[in-house]
Amino acid sequence: MRVGPGLWPRLRAVQVYGANTNVGKTLVSTLLVKAARERRNWRTWYLKPVSTGPLDEADNSHIARHAPTVPSRTLFQFRTPVSPHLAVRLESTSLGDAPILSGVHAELTRYAAAGPGFALVETAGGVLSPAPSGSLQADVYRPLRLPVLLVADHALGGIATSISAFESLHVRGYDVTSVVLIQDEEYRNAEYLTEYFADRGIATTGIPPPPARLPDSNSDAESLGKYYEQVSASPAIDGVLQGIEDEHEARLARLGTMAEEAHKSIWYPFTQHQGRKAEDILVIDSAYGDDFAALTPTAAPSLLQPTFDGSASWWTQGLGHGSPALSLAAAHAAGRYGHVMFAGAVHEPALALAQLLLTHHANPRLSRVFYTDNGSAGMEVAVKMGLRAACARYGWDHTAKKVEILGLKGGYHGDTMGVMDAAEPSTYNARVEWYTPRGYWFEFPQVKMRDGKWVVESPAGLEGIFGPPREFGSLGEVFELQTRDASAYEKYITATLKDLRDQSRTFGALVLEPVVLGAGGMYFADPLFQHALINTIRRNPTLISATAPPPTSDPEDWTGLPIIFDEIFTGLYRLGHFNTSALLQAEPDIIANAKLLTGGLVPLCTTAASESIFEAFLSADKASALLHGHSYTAHAVGCAVAVESVKMLMGLERTWGGYREDWGGGKVWSMWSRGFVEQVSRLKRVDYAAAMGSVFVVALKDEEGAGYNSNASADVQRRLMEGTGGYRIHNRVLGNVLYLMASETSTPDTLAEVQRCLLEALEA
Amino acid sequence: MRVGPGLWPRLRAVQVYGANTNVGKTLVSTLLVKAARERRNWRTWYLKPVSTGPLDEADNSHIARHAPTVPSRTLFQFRTPVSPHLAVRLESTSLGDAPILSGVHAELTRYAAAGPGFALVETAGGVLSPAPSGSLQADVYRPLRLPVLLVADHALGGIATSISAFESLHVRGYDVTSVVLIQDEEYRNAEYLTEYFADRGIATTGIPPPPARLPDSNSDAESLGKYYEQVSASPAIDGVLQGIEDEHEARLARLGTMAEEAHKSIWYPFTQHQGRKAEDILVIDSAYGDDFAALTPTAAPSLLQPTFDGSASWWTQGLGHGSPALSLAAAHAAGRYGHVMFAGAVHEPALALAQLLLTHHANPRLSRVFYTDNGSAGMEVAVKMGLRAACARYGWDHTAKKVEILGLKGGYHGDTMGVMDAAEPSTYNARVEWYTPRGYWFEFPQVKMRDGKWVVESPAGLEGIFGPPREFGSLGEVFELQTRDASAYEKYITATLKDLRDQSRTFGALVLEPVVLGAGGMYFADPLFQHALINTIRRNPTLISATAPPPTSDPEDWTGLPIIFDEIFTGLYRLGHFNTSALLQAEPDIIANAKLLTGGLVPLCTTAASESIFEAFLSADKASALLHGHSYTAHAVGCAVAVESVKMLMGLERTWGGYREDWGGGKVWSMWSRGFVEQVSRLKRVDYAAAMGSVFVVALKDEEGAGYNSNASADVQRRLMEGTGGYRIHNRVLGNVLYLMASETSTPDTLAEVQRCLLEALEA
Repeated sequence: MRVGPGLWPRLRAVQVYGANTNVGKTLVSTLLVKAARERRNWRTWYLKPVSTGPLDEADNSHIARHAPTVPSRTLFQFRTPVSPHLAVRLESTSLGDAPILSGVHAELTRYAAAGPGFALVETAGGVLSPAPSGSLQADVYRPLRLPVLLVADHALGGIATSISAFESLHVRGYDVTSVVLIQDEEYRNAEYLTEYFADRGIATTGIPPPPARLPDSNSDAESLGKYYEQVSASPAIDGVLQGIEDEHEARLARLGTMAEEAHKSIWYPFTQHQGRKAEDILVIDSAYGDDFAALTPTAAPSLLQPTFDGSASWWTQGLGHGSPALSLAAAHAAGRYGHVMFAGAVHEPALALAQLLLTHHANPRLSRVFYTDNGSAGMEVAVKMGLRAACARYGWDHTAKKVEILGLKGGYHGDTMGVMDAAEPSTYNARVEWYTPRGYWFEFPQVKMRDGKWVVESPAGLEGIFGPPREFGSLGEVFELQTRDASAYEKYITATLKDLRDQSRTFGALVLEPVVLGAGGMYFADPLFQHALINTIRRNPTLISATAPPPTSDPEDWTGLPIIFDEIFTGLYRLGHFNTSALLQAEPDIIANAKLLTGGLVPLCTTAASESIFEAFLSADKASALLHGHSYTAHAVGCAVAVESVKMLMGLERTWGGYREDWGGGKVWSMWSRGFVEQVSRLKRVDYAAAMGSVFVVALKDEEGAGYNSNASADVQRRLMEGTGGYRIHNRVLGNVLYLMASETSTPDTLAEVQRCLLEALEA
Repeated sequence: MRVGPGLWPRLRAVQVYGANTNVGKTLVSTLLVKAARERRNWRTWYLKPVSTGPLDEADNSHIARHAPTVPSRTLFQFRTPVSPHLAVRLESTSLGDAPILSGVHAELTRYAAAGPGFALVETAGGVLSPAPSGSLQADVYRPLRLPVLLVADHALGGIATSISAFESLHVRGYDVTSVVLIQDEEYRNAEYLTEYFADRGIATTGIPPPPARLPDSNSDAESLGKYYEQVSASPAIDGVLQGIEDEHEARLARLGTMAEEAHKSIWYPFTQHQGRKAEDILVIDSAYGDDFAALTPTAAPSLLQPTFDGSASWWTQGLGHGSPALSLAAAHAAGRYGHVMFAGAVHEPALALAQLLLTHHANPRLSRVFYTDNGSAGMEVAVKMGLRAACARYGWDHTAKKVEILGLKGGYHGDTMGVMDAAEPSTYNARVEWYTPRGYWFEFPQVKMRDGKWVVESPAGLEGIFGPPREFGSLGEVFELQTRDASAYEKYITATLKDLRDQSRTFGALVLEPVVLGAGGMYFADPLFQHALINTIRRNPTLISATAPPPTSDPEDWTGLPIIFDEIFTGLYRLGHFNTSALLQAEPDIIANAKLLTGGLVPLCTTAASESIFEAFLSADKASALLHGHSYTAHAVGCAVAVESVKMLMGLERTWGGYREDWGGGKVWSMWSRGFVEQVSRLKRVDYAAAMGSVFVVALKDEEGAGYNSNASADVQRRLMEGTGGYRIHNRVLGNVLYLMASETSTPDTLAEVQRCLLEALEA
């Protein structure tokens, strides 16, 4: 059972965090569980996941003494009274985060099964105190995302520590729903904090200070006992419980109505609304790591189920949802800059990102970075760049001559109209009133695994030219371009370009999604074909323009046509490499990156280009500049997050050794297991499968040509969402093609579970 | 002198924050200033801006005793030993944030003038302890953005408080450059924190604990004195000073090379690079409130000067740069979700934002919100929506008939190619190879202040139809549409539409920037003309299609044509109102919002539409859906920031009373003073001026028709950037039109200073 978010309709569960140690966490917890049990008559549980110090001083012993009717439990106890990360070391033991998390989840699940009740989970130390593993405690418990009761700090300086503690919870995506603190007449922190948190919609409750400690332990216990009796019966404590109940009910109500309200007010992207019902909408409470915490009203016991984000949130996710590192990077840039206008200005994150990308693309052609807000806009810029450079070199007047692009059938570069025009006529653009196809799109051979074998297949109708399907011993062999014969491809490409030239068609750029064509249908293109296409154009500029100069030997200049790589989907390790140049053995003149660029957080796109393309826009005329620019161009938040993301992604390379080995240790590999891909490809209803990097694709057999309208995968998709073994898989399909995309941080364990689910769904 | 960021080349200045009170801030400060003065022989200053407690116990007295050669000063001392916000109350006094900030700035400026040196500014309490005003201390000092030395907490629980304190500084945009803490053998916080901060590139230094307090005060002082002598001479303390020096030099070096590096690697938006030099690039260290902290190598004494963000960072800024509220909203959403795929899913921020906008637009036509990443894409969606609805109702086949849009000359809707096609041919699109104008664009009369009088002027050549310029007693009168005669406009519009119909041209939407046309030239359109245009189309559907049904009485349905308001620039209080409907007395069928939507932080756009337009996309055919959607559609960070921004903007309404009164108290008003606008309009070189909301425009006299290529305003722009009185104004021009845009939070004081600067620059 995968441990995910916790929300049980009948169990009001809160997690108690302290703004510091010694702020009265256990005192407040005791008052609350006592009042819940004795005054409200709630079935009540007290849980301490990790505790350090002598057993008889443990917090659950304290509960047992002062609220004896409340069952209390400590999951992991260490005797040394220091921070847990030191205690494990001193006791020569260790404890990972997972057992703590699953222990708490299991306990709460058990409580919830017992009927309506209240559970209080008390943390150790302050919000960010280290867990036994050394991880910060608030990170360890984050997948549960229990509502938080923060015990604020009543001491001198406690305003500062309380607000900082709140902020640390807040940036980790917790909802702090109530604040409680001991009243102190001198420092009056309660007064200040009440106002402060009220502005943020959070109720603060002050409680009377406990009695002074007495030297005699019996008298002390008695005096404290009286305090508990009295204060637990107070309206203040009852108010806190009422607040917890209200928040719980409000959260349930909100989650329960969100789908209906969204159904009325949201116009969804890429969604035919006819026939859709409110209940078709996935309500996402939050997300963490690989998983959505998604509402599952029919599931028992927790309303929220961990649901694998099988589309990597539209291919953006690479570092796991809810990464505190990305959250803090975003917040730092927001706090340092907000957004600052970028025309003619520079700020550190924008410069750092440009330099980072130029350095690691390690492509001598690339020298300049242009920023836009998303892949679609970034590809429009790429096309504008390419066309201008070609028109300038070849002396074409675009007002007199239609200048088009060359591409591949099934390519897709975004939804704004300019890049729609760069894609062949298809379902996606047929109904767009202003769609005007401006290109020639080549058929191309595809790489597929059929019945456990890698094959390269010609497109229908071109078998006569490209030959019958060719088998390969491994996916790696397909990419051994030097050992393969490209002559049939080159001949075909040359002939086609000649034909086009004879028809007086004019082309200003070659626009490719390298290796895998994404939105068009997750086609794995034969890399040799893309390689041959690029080389044929570069070696034969006169195929493009009769007056073209011969190929340049300048490694930084373009020749033939500007070659544009749309690596928005395929770049930045989606296919296991920083970029696809090593796979295709060809380097672009222009490259666009987005999606993984910000690790799955905010939109941002970079279009990098060569100096010679940049120079095509230089002129004494202001208006000859690249007159493109969005208000939020190079927004600091996006750039800062991207710098952090790219560095984190690069740092992951060392974690992929096991995956690589599974695929033979070569440059072509996948996070999806080779055995799994083979097994899927052999299933009866499967047409073919394929995988590379974090991408896995399975095409289901379908009536010929249903394409985007196909429903072949609908039942599989439904079964995956229903889930097996407590785990659900959310995924997206492209017609009959179902794909799964891992994060670059996904672990073999997680993927094994996903693979198991998919096999069950496909075989059902 | 406006107080801005502090960076003096010869003054190594650090601000010491404590992770809590009693963590040894003064101890560490004493060691550092002592070592700096006595060991490194640096000219050294100690500054305590705000202190509470008896004078003889004040921190500067401590410095005077233990580092007697270091000048020490407390700016504001309160005797009651509690938090400053309580002390002022108990002492029946008050102290705002500004005097503290300017006091520190003035002191540091004085130190910097004395020659190379080191200044240490010690804060009070913890990072977020309240200042005397009640503001959080870290917010008060933020405009200076001094590098921070964080004194971490060595006590039990101190790992948590130290990291939380760090995070509170981090989300406010501070650079924490070093961490120092007392070594404690039991809790070993230094060990953990050293590793933690090293991962973040920050050096941590442990120092020996001070001697135990002695009962006799002389012996105690002596014992502490020995400690200081010994430890201040230690390599550890020397290392901290070296770190401060290295960071200082690195920051100077980085700032010094950024322009050159950006010049080599960045391709700027809307920028003709030819002839531009590295030194033309504005290096922005950070930003706060209304100002950039911009590098000014020639300025004395601080390298960074406060520079008014006169374009409101391309019209996005409304809540001040570096708002901690927006930073935390962004971080919370990042921590809670990251990004979650939006097709068929819903999360709270997206739903909350849609509902917030629909509620406050209070336009019965609007019922659905579609999300995109920026205004350009959002307007493409608006056009796709409008065209489809019109084609569906009128039975037009877009493959057989060119369906265009109606608009105004000078309109501009973004840089992606689809919306470029929705703008008349102009400088912006002339060189875009795929630009294809698809519309008819009306001439329109403009509102201008000439020589202190508001006039409405006909476009050149149409005086015969619209009449000579008409004067108005106030801008408000121009907007009293009911009392004005629209018949000439209506007649002209009707005749034009008939002509177009006779030419068999087909139009699918009316696309308007209401009230002010932004990027095209900041034109203030006569609202009566826009009103008449909308009404004429709505009342006479047969002008659009001979077979059109008569106007509907359904207030939620469109009639004639879908009316699209591009309020990306003009909406959300940019012109003083939530939307422009009250100004134009007309409500759109589709409206796009962006820019201010996220308060100036990250890109996001909403396109809201009516149910009847939504229904035009319903079909049994999947592919008839609005097949548009970006990967980061409705990204949680943007939606959460937008919810916060919109609420904050709405909350500002109550602060604008003074501005409104200045303009007569009516619905039309500006943050720019009425007297200033009049004065500018009377200047010799000024053609006209105009202002509304936070927008101010001045058109300079120019040779006829230079337009976008005009250099008429270049000298004014240069003078503004050179600055007067220590304040510089960064601004953008559109040809001969220079504009200034305030944030919605800008204060009258700030704007008065900006106005003074502009008048000086215009009169020079």
